[in-house]
Amino acid sequence: MEINLPDVVAEVTAVFEQYEKALIENDVEVLDGLFWNDPRVVRYGAGENLYGYDQIAEFRKSRPSKGLERTLRNTVITTHGTDLATVWTEFLRPGVNRVGRQSQVWTRQPEGWRVVAAHVSFMDA
Amino acid sequence: MEINLPDVVAEVTAVFEQYEKALIENDVEVLDGLFWNDPRVVRYGAGENLYGYDQIAEFRKSRPSKGLERTLRNTVITTHGTDLATVWTEFLRPGVNRVGRQSQVWTRQPEGWRVVAAHVSFMDA
Repeated sequence: MEINLPDVVAEVTAVFEQYEKALIENDVEVLDGLFWNDPRVVRYGAGENLYGYDQIAEFRKSRPSKGLERTLRNTVITTHGTDLATVWTEFLRPGVNRVGRQSQVWTRQPEGWRVVAAHVSFMDA
Repeated sequence: MEINLPDVVAEVTAVFEQYEKALIENDVEVLDGLFWNDPRVVRYGAGENLYGYDQIAEFRKSRPSKGLERTLRNTVITTHGTDLATVWTEFLRPGVNRVGRQSQVWTRQPEGWRVVAAHVSFMDA
């Protein structure tokens, strides 16, 4: 599989930025829409392990809607062929000393790029 | 992309089990061999963020070689088409109260299945 074809990287970068904006603004509709609507999607959060689209959507409803600002660093977007991308990024939140890490696997679906698996955590000091 | 084609799931399950055995036995050669030998591979560990094959290999050399036993649970192997798999699993270590999570993205390379991105963390209580 060809790595980092420029057009594919541009597509994934755009959808990743859309996701990040929605995350900070707590735009639940966009966040839900960018996840794979399937029972097999998995999302590990900092404090929960969620299995399937419904659990993830339910979690988002009860997520605090303030204090979501964060800064990304060392973001690595890697595309494999035309239909798969990994986006691994560190993030820092104001007032939080620990380093956050967010990993997403995106695949191209008929309706567009979707997150099929994700893992968010804070690094142990 | 077809999800969970049985032959592909069987292949990935086998290589994942090989990796898990090597991890518990601290068989560094096998662990290194199953990672993508590329500067773009990323591995977030519980306490470190590693970029590129060399950083990961260096880390493994200094990793404690004892107390590596663990039990997996809720392992989700999902294959997309013939060349991509995600393996998200929880793990428990004896004497550790926190729930571990390990995420791996595997792709089929000419030489076999390799981990192209990984994220390991402990869930916040």
